[in-house]
Amino acid sequence: MSKPLNIGMIGYGFMGRAHSNAYRKVNNFFDLAYHPVLKAACARSADKARAFADQWGYESVETDWRKLLERKDIDAVDICVPNNLHSEIAHAAAAAGKMILCEKPLAMNGPEGLKMVQAVEKAKVANMVWYNYRRVPAVTFAKKLIDDGKLGRVFHYRANFLQDWTISPELPQGGTGLWRLDAAAAGSGVTGDLLAHCIDTAIWLNGHIANVNAMTETFVKERKHTGTGKVEKVGIDDACAFLCRFANGSLGLFESTRYARGHKALYTFEVNGEHASLKWDLHDLHRLQYFDNRDEGPLRGWRSIHVTDGDHPYMGKWWVPGLQIGYEHSFVHQVADFIEGITKDKPAMPDFRDALRTQHVCDAVLDSAKSGKWLDVPKA
Amino acid sequence: MSKPLNIGMIGYGFMGRAHSNAYRKVNNFFDLAYHPVLKAACARSADKARAFADQWGYESVETDWRKLLERKDIDAVDICVPNNLHSEIAHAAAAAGKMILCEKPLAMNGPEGLKMVQAVEKAKVANMVWYNYRRVPAVTFAKKLIDDGKLGRVFHYRANFLQDWTISPELPQGGTGLWRLDAAAAGSGVTGDLLAHCIDTAIWLNGHIANVNAMTETFVKERKHTGTGKVEKVGIDDACAFLCRFANGSLGLFESTRYARGHKALYTFEVNGEHASLKWDLHDLHRLQYFDNRDEGPLRGWRSIHVTDGDHPYMGKWWVPGLQIGYEHSFVHQVADFIEGITKDKPAMPDFRDALRTQHVCDAVLDSAKSGKWLDVPKA
Amino acid sequence: MSKPLNIGMIGYGFMGRAHSNAYRKVNNFFDLAYHPVLKAACARSADKARAFADQWGYESVETDWRKLLERKDIDAVDICVPNNLHSEIAHAAAAAGKMILCEKPLAMNGPEGLKMVQAVEKAKVANMVWYNYRRVPAVTFAKKLIDDGKLGRVFHYRANFLQDWTISPELPQGGTGLWRLDAAAAGSGVTGDLLAHCIDTAIWLNGHIANVNAMTETFVKERKHTGTGKVEKVGIDDACAFLCRFANGSLGLFESTRYARGHKALYTFEVNGEHASLKWDLHDLHRLQYFDNRDEGPLRGWRSIHVTDGDHPYMGKWWVPGLQIGYEHSFVHQVADFIEGITKDKPAMPDFRDALRTQHVCDAVLDSAKSGKWLDVPKA
Amino acid sequence: MSKPLNIGMIGYGFMGRAHSNAYRKVNNFFDLAYHPVLKAACARSADKARAFADQWGYESVETDWRKLLERKDIDAVDICVPNNLHSEIAHAAAAAGKMILCEKPLAMNGPEGLKMVQAVEKAKVANMVWYNYRRVPAVTFAKKLIDDGKLGRVFHYRANFLQDWTISPELPQGGTGLWRLDAAAAGSGVTGDLLAHCIDTAIWLNGHIANVNAMTETFVKERKHTGTGKVEKVGIDDACAFLCRFANGSLGLFESTRYARGHKALYTFEVNGEHASLKWDLHDLHRLQYFDNRDEGPLRGWRSIHVTDGDHPYMGKWWVPGLQIGYEHSFVHQVADFIEGITKDKPAMPDFRDALRTQHVCDAVLDSAKSGKWLDVPKA
Repeated sequence: MSKPLNIGMIGYGFMGRAHSNAYRKVNNFFDLAYHPVLKAACARSADKARAFADQWGYESVETDWRKLLERKDIDAVDICVPNNLHSEIAHAAAAAGKMILCEKPLAMNGPEGLKMVQAVEKAKVANMVWYNYRRVPAVTFAKKLIDDGKLGRVFHYRANFLQDWTISPELPQGGTGLWRLDAAAAGSGVTGDLLAHCIDTAIWLNGHIANVNAMTETFVKERKHTGTGKVEKVGIDDACAFLCRFANGSLGLFESTRYARGHKALYTFEVNGEHASLKWDLHDLHRLQYFDNRDEGPLRGWRSIHVTDGDHPYMGKWWVPGLQIGYEHSFVHQVADFIEGITKDKPAMPDFRDALRTQHVCDAVLDSAKSGKWLDVPKA
Repeated sequence: MSKPLNIGMIGYGFMGRAHSNAYRKVNNFFDLAYHPVLKAACARSADKARAFADQWGYESVETDWRKLLERKDIDAVDICVPNNLHSEIAHAAAAAGKMILCEKPLAMNGPEGLKMVQAVEKAKVANMVWYNYRRVPAVTFAKKLIDDGKLGRVFHYRANFLQDWTISPELPQGGTGLWRLDAAAAGSGVTGDLLAHCIDTAIWLNGHIANVNAMTETFVKERKHTGTGKVEKVGIDDACAFLCRFANGSLGLFESTRYARGHKALYTFEVNGEHASLKWDLHDLHRLQYFDNRDEGPLRGWRSIHVTDGDHPYMGKWWVPGLQIGYEHSFVHQVADFIEGITKDKPAMPDFRDALRTQHVCDAVLDSAKSGKWLDVPKA
Repeated sequence: MSKPLNIGMIGYGFMGRAHSNAYRKVNNFFDLAYHPVLKAACARSADKARAFADQWGYESVETDWRKLLERKDIDAVDICVPNNLHSEIAHAAAAAGKMILCEKPLAMNGPEGLKMVQAVEKAKVANMVWYNYRRVPAVTFAKKLIDDGKLGRVFHYRANFLQDWTISPELPQGGTGLWRLDAAAAGSGVTGDLLAHCIDTAIWLNGHIANVNAMTETFVKERKHTGTGKVEKVGIDDACAFLCRFANGSLGLFESTRYARGHKALYTFEVNGEHASLKWDLHDLHRLQYFDNRDEGPLRGWRSIHVTDGDHPYMGKWWVPGLQIGYEHSFVHQVADFIEGITKDKPAMPDFRDALRTQHVCDAVLDSAKSGKWLDVPKA
Repeated sequence: MSKPLNIGMIGYGFMGRAHSNAYRKVNNFFDLAYHPVLKAACARSADKARAFADQWGYESVETDWRKLLERKDIDAVDICVPNNLHSEIAHAAAAAGKMILCEKPLAMNGPEGLKMVQAVEKAKVANMVWYNYRRVPAVTFAKKLIDDGKLGRVFHYRANFLQDWTISPELPQGGTGLWRLDAAAAGSGVTGDLLAHCIDTAIWLNGHIANVNAMTETFVKERKHTGTGKVEKVGIDDACAFLCRFANGSLGLFESTRYARGHKALYTFEVNGEHASLKWDLHDLHRLQYFDNRDEGPLRGWRSIHVTDGDHPYMGKWWVPGLQIGYEHSFVHQVADFIEGITKDKPAMPDFRDALRTQHVCDAVLDSAKSGKWLDVPKA
């Protein structure tokens, strides 16, 4: 029988829901040594904490995350609050000896992130960052194909994350669901929110990004701030694009925006290798496109692989071939892998240090956009 | 606070899992007057019942479905066993005053189905059949567009359900996961298994099917039977196609097979109307294709609608635009609608009578395939 | 140096243009023993004949096709007039010893077609029917894959030809460009116009069609006739669908209509074999979709083959990989093959006899639609 | 009746074929005041000139382009030779008072191009550069939609031109069909060959590119040179990507490579505007993807427009809706427009000056790739 893994959730927003769903479902589909128990939900507002706990079945509520960290019956805390609060909570959690599952991006910037890494490594607590897209089966499968050498030498990597939800200048900055437009809470705009995902996947699939050259733009310069009630300068980047070179010699091209009309959440990547290429996009996340130059000449073509077979990553746990899963399942897989990691003492990635790599690239991207220069990215 | 709805599950296979998952999740996402409680799981094998109950959190187990029906603490039974067992259980459940959620197809044939309808109607118990594809958001949205008159007069309806998993002659008939190849357990092959889905959707979207003309084929004539251990004649249809005319004057074309190499579970339908057309397929179930002739001339084109917005059916309950859901969610929606139905005393469809309509078409199809003649379909 | 092949064109409509373009282009791209010379254009109206000749570079005009046939300087006649005129001209041309290139369908019906076959075989004149889609490179490539045994045993063949141009009841029957709605001129509606293409390809790819069961519909029952000026009953089929069995044991499903909103000229076919499947559609005619079950398991997927490489049929004659050709090129290829045929005395298919096979299927389809019965198709 | 326009073709390669085909076809489909006459073909090798002339119907041959320019019976010269020869011929042709149709890119660099512009403007001869993709109907239609204001303010423009034909290190530089790998003949690699097309379209659709920041890479550093027979350093760019800002405030992202396995000639562009977005790719050049945010909310989706209707640009001249044209037709359209331009004295674009704009961007891109800095692009 599996043992309990008592979860303390801090936050109750979109990610709080996604993670809670994952904790609740994982043992129905995966055979694991632990089963998450939704022990406590924490939010400053007692009403919101209570409502969230009722909705998801948390056994108790807290309104002060420090109290939550003091509780003996909590094994792991899940940090699902705006980016500017990650660091303080993570330091305290590490000090309290709790496992930490932290929403991405890890930190407001590299130096802050580095201290968080040092804290968890010193405390020797299990730690993970929710770059969930690694666990979309088609993406995990892409990783396997690359590791198996199917692509050979890589020449090109390109990724986009395109959205269109902030085009209206009437949208305020700050407030429920809109803290991502407020630089004080979010740190950056699309760079930390969207490109961070693209960068995490890219490093995972293609290795270290050596240097970058970026541009950013803020199309709507002023928005009403829900905190002050005044029209204020917008501090985030609405769009960001950058060129880069990977340590393996391949070229990279990344772009993200919230001003690409027609795209809701179109995260795409493509990798071109000597022998084969592959591409994926989030709008049809259960498919991987694959081209293999070793196929018989006239029969070569991009294969649209419906990643729903029992021998595709994770898919043997779900339904039958042809029946697709969705966005939320990536979180279930991440919980399963986290539990496997603590069971076998082989930490599931990305841990804090792994996530710091993405943070360093984000920092270099934002700095390069200011200076107009190529900047090297430090290793983590 | 919501009230409990105590579920007794009969069966533990693929559908048992799909339904159990739906019962467990529905209240996390939908605000409902009842919440399903997984009260008891029933299977002839105590070990299998116990394992299933542990996996899904059922509170107790039974090994005799008659015992389950006697229990006062069961409000609703879910019939997830092979087709040839539906009728007997349904009659007993109705007599015991239990709500019934029955897997599709309703019965082995129309006459059997009719008696089941009479039983539940006489007993006045809530009843529903799991034609889950109606609740895929893109399909529900198609229904809304048709009901809103977007298509105008309908000329054509065509549907396919193509699979390729039984091509190998080495596959036996009968046994775990393979009772669908055994005519004694399944009643028919693709007609009841796959076409039944296509027919249910078609009647729902386009009304009564007046008459049909069909052909069937069994490509592999003999297979080893796991029950007898002998090679026996295969009694099911491996493939079935039929022409039909709907009562509204439109023409229909249906095809199903398990011998279409390359298709895992490709259920597709297309409706062509005077003003607009729409099509959908299960392999990318979160998309609806829509063509509107009233669009500005040169800008006309098939729109690929990513049915993931808050104003799309059911989708406001899940994530954010662009993030897709999958196959299993259709069952969650069906549970939500069932609960809404019993709450407001407006039964969720398809109930047994509605499902009988599909049964009548299936019967006519199989009879026509034998006689080679056009056959009228009785109304239900 | 190549020798002249003097062409006499009868007709000046859409097909007259398509064929003339092919005659003019073929020697720029193909090395052939003959080069077509546009010797004479023939139409009842001298003005129309003259205008057409000027547009395309025909050296002379005729207003009586009998005169054209008498001319010594004409080697081959091209019959591009409505279906009801094919037979008389073909008989006379054969008698005059001219090669004949006849638009499809061959005849108004099978018996008429049989006599045409007998006439050209008796006269020993080269003869061909313009079922041009065989020469779309992706379709020719499909034929090669099937002949090479890539698919193995075939289980299913399905084809559609969907259009939407006659939905308006305001459209008259008869008149310029509209003789296809007039049963007296066209013989049938979509069956002879569209399904004939599907049937020709099907027989070519998958062999004899043994028997059929069909339905037809005329959605708009009456239209103004441009000849009489009166509203008259419409005699053609607006839509036709049929089930069939091929001699090789595979099942076929065919459908055609001019009432499928959103489809301009969507000719599609799909063949499902034991080992592989393929599909094609006219709206992206330069692509072939191919699925091979012998691919490495998890990497299986439908390949979208861009049929534009030098080792694809005909494509070495055109541009470079990635640059597509279009509809008109199928006619160029047919002329090239016709010339190869007369050069090497290996007639290019389909000749009249080959086209008679399609005629027999069309007849059986139309008869079955009337009787509601399965009908056998005679061999040709 | 139309008047003759006597063409002198210099070159006999891929582009010589594409242009010759266009001259031969244009009057069959377009009603024009002039009809091109294939007067002379010029190549250094008399045999090659003769073979080319025979294949395409040129009336005479020349082996010295200076002789061709001296001929009174030549109205226009078509420069289809490697890039390093454009300038000298263009200057001489202008001095001889000939109209000039020059292959792209205009010149080896901006300063050279500027002198060519000055020469033709001084000589007042009609001049045009073969950026043929402007005349793909779907691209022309995109231009119309933008000019009609369908998109509103533009935020993003991105374009790729991806190929995979030079991955093998065995491929030599120089020689027949391979002069594009030789920096001395080509000037640059993908920048002048492929990105030049992307830039031309971008400026046409979205206006002046104000500044750029680029990177280039040469993956295969040394290749055998067919001229010297020795392995020599490769001087061209195998891949090039750049960020840019348009004068209208939108952001641009461009990439080109010959190392993207699986892409034969995938030129794609996408434009994201305030109200609508559109995208196109060369592999399915007859389609335009269009998204309009003003569509009814839940029915919004990317429309796949099959640009084959009579009211689509140029398409009324060809076949009927649904029947696609191909790559070569873009050249036919360009000839038609060139003739319209000289007829109505409204020069068809791009003329030399217009093409100089692309040259300036290419220069800045290549310079920026060397310096790593943002560079401003001069106006032309």
